[in-house]
Amino acid sequence: MNYKMMGRFIGKMLIVEAVFMIPALLISLSGSEYNAVFGFGVSLLLTLLAAGILLLAGRGSKKKFYAREGLVCVGLSWAILGLLGALPFYISGEIPDFVDAFFEIVSGFTTTGASILTEIEGLSKGIIYWRSFSHWLGGMGVLVFLLAITSAGGGDNGFTMHLLRAESPGPNVGKLVPKMKKTARILYLLYIALTVLNVIFLLAGGMPVFDAVCTAFGTAGTGGFGIKNDSIAGYSPYIQNVCTVFMLLFGVNFSCYYLLLLKQFKNVLRDEELKLYLGLAAGSILLITLNLRGFYPTLGETVRHAAFQVSSIMTTTGFATTDFDLWPAFSKTILFGLMIVGASAGSTGGGFKCGRALLVIKSLRRSVRKVIHPEKVQVVRSNGHPVDEKILQNVNAYLAAYAIITLLSFLLISVDGFSMMTNLSAVVACFNNIGPGFEAVGPTCNFAGFSWFSKLVLILDMLAGRLEIFPILILFSRSTWKRR
Amino acid sequence: MNYKMMGRFIGKMLIVEAVFMIPALLISLSGSEYNAVFGFGVSLLLTLLAAGILLLAGRGSKKKFYAREGLVCVGLSWAILGLLGALPFYISGEIPDFVDAFFEIVSGFTTTGASILTEIEGLSKGIIYWRSFSHWLGGMGVLVFLLAITSAGGGDNGFTMHLLRAESPGPNVGKLVPKMKKTARILYLLYIALTVLNVIFLLAGGMPVFDAVCTAFGTAGTGGFGIKNDSIAGYSPYIQNVCTVFMLLFGVNFSCYYLLLLKQFKNVLRDEELKLYLGLAAGSILLITLNLRGFYPTLGETVRHAAFQVSSIMTTTGFATTDFDLWPAFSKTILFGLMIVGASAGSTGGGFKCGRALLVIKSLRRSVRKVIHPEKVQVVRSNGHPVDEKILQNVNAYLAAYAIITLLSFLLISVDGFSMMTNLSAVVACFNNIGPGFEAVGPTCNFAGFSWFSKLVLILDMLAGRLEIFPILILFSRSTWKRR
Repeated sequence: MNYKMMGRFIGKMLIVEAVFMIPALLISLSGSEYNAVFGFGVSLLLTLLAAGILLLAGRGSKKKFYAREGLVCVGLSWAILGLLGALPFYISGEIPDFVDAFFEIVSGFTTTGASILTEIEGLSKGIIYWRSFSHWLGGMGVLVFLLAITSAGGGDNGFTMHLLRAESPGPNVGKLVPKMKKTARILYLLYIALTVLNVIFLLAGGMPVFDAVCTAFGTAGTGGFGIKNDSIAGYSPYIQNVCTVFMLLFGVNFSCYYLLLLKQFKNVLRDEELKLYLGLAAGSILLITLNLRGFYPTLGETVRHAAFQVSSIMTTTGFATTDFDLWPAFSKTILFGLMIVGASAGSTGGGFKCGRALLVIKSLRRSVRKVIHPEKVQVVRSNGHPVDEKILQNVNAYLAAYAIITLLSFLLISVDGFSMMTNLSAVVACFNNIGPGFEAVGPTCNFAGFSWFSKLVLILDMLAGRLEIFPILILFSRSTWKRR
Repeated sequence: MNYKMMGRFIGKMLIVEAVFMIPALLISLSGSEYNAVFGFGVSLLLTLLAAGILLLAGRGSKKKFYAREGLVCVGLSWAILGLLGALPFYISGEIPDFVDAFFEIVSGFTTTGASILTEIEGLSKGIIYWRSFSHWLGGMGVLVFLLAITSAGGGDNGFTMHLLRAESPGPNVGKLVPKMKKTARILYLLYIALTVLNVIFLLAGGMPVFDAVCTAFGTAGTGGFGIKNDSIAGYSPYIQNVCTVFMLLFGVNFSCYYLLLLKQFKNVLRDEELKLYLGLAAGSILLITLNLRGFYPTLGETVRHAAFQVSSIMTTTGFATTDFDLWPAFSKTILFGLMIVGASAGSTGGGFKCGRALLVIKSLRRSVRKVIHPEKVQVVRSNGHPVDEKILQNVNAYLAAYAIITLLSFLLISVDGFSMMTNLSAVVACFNNIGPGFEAVGPTCNFAGFSWFSKLVLILDMLAGRLEIFPILILFSRSTWKRR
């Protein structure tokens, strides 16, 4: 293990985290929220201290590194990001339990949006800002950000490639341009542009600036922390519809936007994952609208809630305009399916990802065809191009890990004695970075009732979901830590 | 498609079915149950008629055949077996709805044990016998039986190999001996011997002969149709314990018994699947016993119910001695996990199978190790022998199909509006050939409340589960029916 290089890297990341605490500190100052000022001040110093120690310890690292070090580094980075990011909540006293604070900020950075808070509107503005901002930073990735602004890890080498691969969602992370650093910059520029556009549309609906910025953070990262107790339900239909559209937009593979900028419209229209993603969304909205006949006073309202909830759940955001736990079983089961399928690869959304689901289905169809015509050579294609067998193997391994983690977490958190659907949906909601589930973790409820043990399991699920399992699995593998 | 060969084969199978209706007819006669006599008489004639037509139409078939024809043949055989096997229920008037009768007999043949009946003790003896017997025939497989007694499909050729492969559970069907016919015979002799032993042990506990035979049928096939309304709850602790032990025995890979006969004790003790199977059972019993402290008056009773339910659910039998739906969430979630893992490959039990789960885990560990040490060649081993990559690919395809079918069925049957856990556990219980699930399909309830549509979905699930998915998937694949 090249601990020095990892230390230096994590140190740099912590400086980024500390710098991003400054706006929250200023907001707290301007609102004379002194407990929050104290919280952010101390946290900032502690984070800088940790960064300094790691940077010092990481001096003179070797240039050599292995793929596993990239993955281990990502896993550790995110755990440390969460531990230090939880400090403002804890030190300010606004979340007096450290496990709760850790849960809340990991839920933020992983863009889950599952909360242990019952009363959000009572929080100070600085804390609300930090909570929402964590979605924005986690959505596109803090390491991607680091790559975009510095030459972390010594320039454009394999290490950065491994980092970007590990932090970006999807089965097949493409570089938009040959240089990693430039790819990271383009991604962040697109991300910032879309976020700003989202804020403008929200302001146009009369939303206060603070609300608009925080809501846009939650939307852009497909996070789902609301700043009101009733999430988005209290806002006007216009604002709800703006959220619906932008959630959907942030669930699209960002390389599609890059292709649009390059005016490669045909390639975007032909993209199989995009078609599946939009098709699933449209189909689900239609089916739920039909299933909800008579549930709301007007058809318009029904469509609005159906579209909002489909968009929110499928992109794994988790905002709510209505208590969908009261919907009929068919609608809820559609949402359950969307929770698992999730958004597009290369977007800020979580879940299994449409692109990966496509590959699983295609690989299965090939297996069936192989039985029917064993003599024919069968190639799996994606957007017309043959898919490397290695990617198919990885997708299948991902499915296995996904199923095992889901079942195991479901079993572990059941010790708390909640209902089975509560437990299953809590795991699905955390592991796929959605937020709300059903029954006792439904959209009007929260995760406060779980024990420390279950919260830690769910924290691991959130991290595993956001980092696409392998960086977390590898932390727990013996061979990772074996000396050669 | 070699329709003639398939016709001839299915014709032979129907003769077997007709012959097996005779004991049920005689039981009805001896009990003067004339509606049942009429039901079995007419069904027998219709089955023979269908057999005759198929045998005549199948004359002069070509010898050439393809793998897909073996699979299609198995899928069709089982559907027709169910359609004609449902006739006695329907014609006797004891199950007046044909879809219900079809559901009940498919549940029998697939050894599921999910019932649409609320009142079992009111059925005539002949019908109860037929219902329980269907478990026994379906457990080891009607086609395997046919292979054991005739030279179906023209001797020991690839066709019979495909049939045996398609009907026998497990990722890697081994021939016990080089000849298929002899393998089928050995399997059935072991099966009969264990069933007789089971009957003897039940008789020793004072069970009436009819009850003992029917209960042994349900145990041997890991089916789970009880002959009492309260399943096994009303019998003595001795009889319950006999069931516990025999259910576990029938969930073991039958090749282990063959190895025991050959005195290869070491190979049996070293068998990884057997170790996982027994380890999971023992661990689950222990955890449930701990979780159920205070739930039953004595520790002895707690252990008895825990052991019975673990054995019943893991082997996918589905008998009950207690309403486990009232158990705490942790115990229920353990049972839910066991429902999915299921019994051993090459046993009469269903589910994903311990052997397949082992391969999935090993294949996943290899993927993790490949990331950590990309330069090393990594081989997956089973019982010390390297596993063919093709088998690993098939296991992964199986997992994908398994997950997709589960989710899709869950969505489809949710139109009936039952609770989500009812629907999910109904699908899991049918697809894994268990029988009871949770909530509205718990051990004290039944499947009568579902609509025709949902019952048909669940029938397909039961068939797909028993035949290990591919024979059913292939029936629905376009390429199967394309002319060359």
